[in-house]
Amino acid sequence: MGGGVKDNDTLKPTPRTRLKRLPKRGHFDRATLHAILDAMPLGHVGYIVDGRPVVTPTLQWREGGRVYWHGSRASRALLASEDAQVCLTVSILDGLVLARSGFHHSANYRSAMLFGRAVRIDDPDLKLAKMRNFTERLYPGRWDELRPVTRKELNATTILSLPIQEGSAKIRSGGPIDDEDDYALPVWAGVVPVSTAVGRPVADVRNLAGVPLPAYLERLVIG
Amino acid sequence: MGGGVKDNDTLKPTPRTRLKRLPKRGHFDRATLHAILDAMPLGHVGYIVDGRPVVTPTLQWREGGRVYWHGSRASRALLASEDAQVCLTVSILDGLVLARSGFHHSANYRSAMLFGRAVRIDDPDLKLAKMRNFTERLYPGRWDELRPVTRKELNATTILSLPIQEGSAKIRSGGPIDDEDDYALPVWAGVVPVSTAVGRPVADVRNLAGVPLPAYLERLVIG
Repeated sequence: MGGGVKDNDTLKPTPRTRLKRLPKRGHFDRATLHAILDAMPLGHVGYIVDGRPVVTPTLQWREGGRVYWHGSRASRALLASEDAQVCLTVSILDGLVLARSGFHHSANYRSAMLFGRAVRIDDPDLKLAKMRNFTERLYPGRWDELRPVTRKELNATTILSLPIQEGSAKIRSGGPIDDEDDYALPVWAGVVPVSTAVGRPVADVRNLAGVPLPAYLERLVIG
Repeated sequence: MGGGVKDNDTLKPTPRTRLKRLPKRGHFDRATLHAILDAMPLGHVGYIVDGRPVVTPTLQWREGGRVYWHGSRASRALLASEDAQVCLTVSILDGLVLARSGFHHSANYRSAMLFGRAVRIDDPDLKLAKMRNFTERLYPGRWDELRPVTRKELNATTILSLPIQEGSAKIRSGGPIDDEDDYALPVWAGVVPVSTAVGRPVADVRNLAGVPLPAYLERLVIG
């Protein structure tokens, strides 16, 4: 699924991705961007409707140097995004940072922000391949366990894609950074770690008797 | 902090918040919206820069019928949002839904989407009160443990606010809904629960000896 994109490539900063403040939090290398996109399927797509911004949550996945998301062909979010400028942002909250002053409280996080024109995938075979890849990214081996997607289902699905070309990652990690004088204060400071927990799978009540829990679900990690 | 807003009020649907598809997932009552906004401090603000959408992650908090977010006075995200149309979306991923066909795979989630014009808070006393409320929402009792915010720090901080007036919540919960014929397939179907875990607080290495872990951190719940 690589398409010739190398993880050690670096995206060129542009006026809207160059960080003016706190430049040490900014990252433009694909390895960092890819790691964030791959860690968290939940993303937020921004697009414009009637001159106003709209932000819709969606599941996204990456293949090589592109990200993908999908939904119903009737989805207003997808209709307004296709062939239009969008911003896809994936954010992971890693912790709450408690400092000795209110001002220096912060959050630890990893975020990836991508800009560009979203394109729709029309070729049915390619759409099918993308749906397969999406499923296999989360659940390796599941696709072949499922009944085949029908042509009608494929027609009812829109898949959009965005190149990982203009964008950046931002990361904050570590403890609080306080004003030097404040370290003398008897205030508890530190980090409350926040993470995404994947729970024990809950089988549907209508599962057939004897159908085992797939092993890929025991290896699922998010965040 | 109520401001006369009642949780049992309902927001009026507008063309951009009325759900065309899957209307059963839509909620317009404040109680549902408030619960989502209160459960997850991480939000995503959409705004427009040079005619293009930008989506920035931020911590948000609610007081009565308004949401607030803040940052550096120099933040491009805040400068582009103030006195401008924004969309603030808060999303919580609750689970991955595995169906017997690829088509019916889904996600369980709660999301709140708000639209409107973001206004900046300029009155220093009001700004201070808002910062206090933000801190106290996450860490009840902490504000008075901290050294006071300085005028310089307050000046360096921008706080934006949006009324909870136009918006909606969307919720999906429960197991997969498959095509009736597919229930005969020997495929594992069900839900993988996803939740936000708050870890054991990590004290800063420069904390003074004997400063105890605050009790409010043991009660912190996110998501």
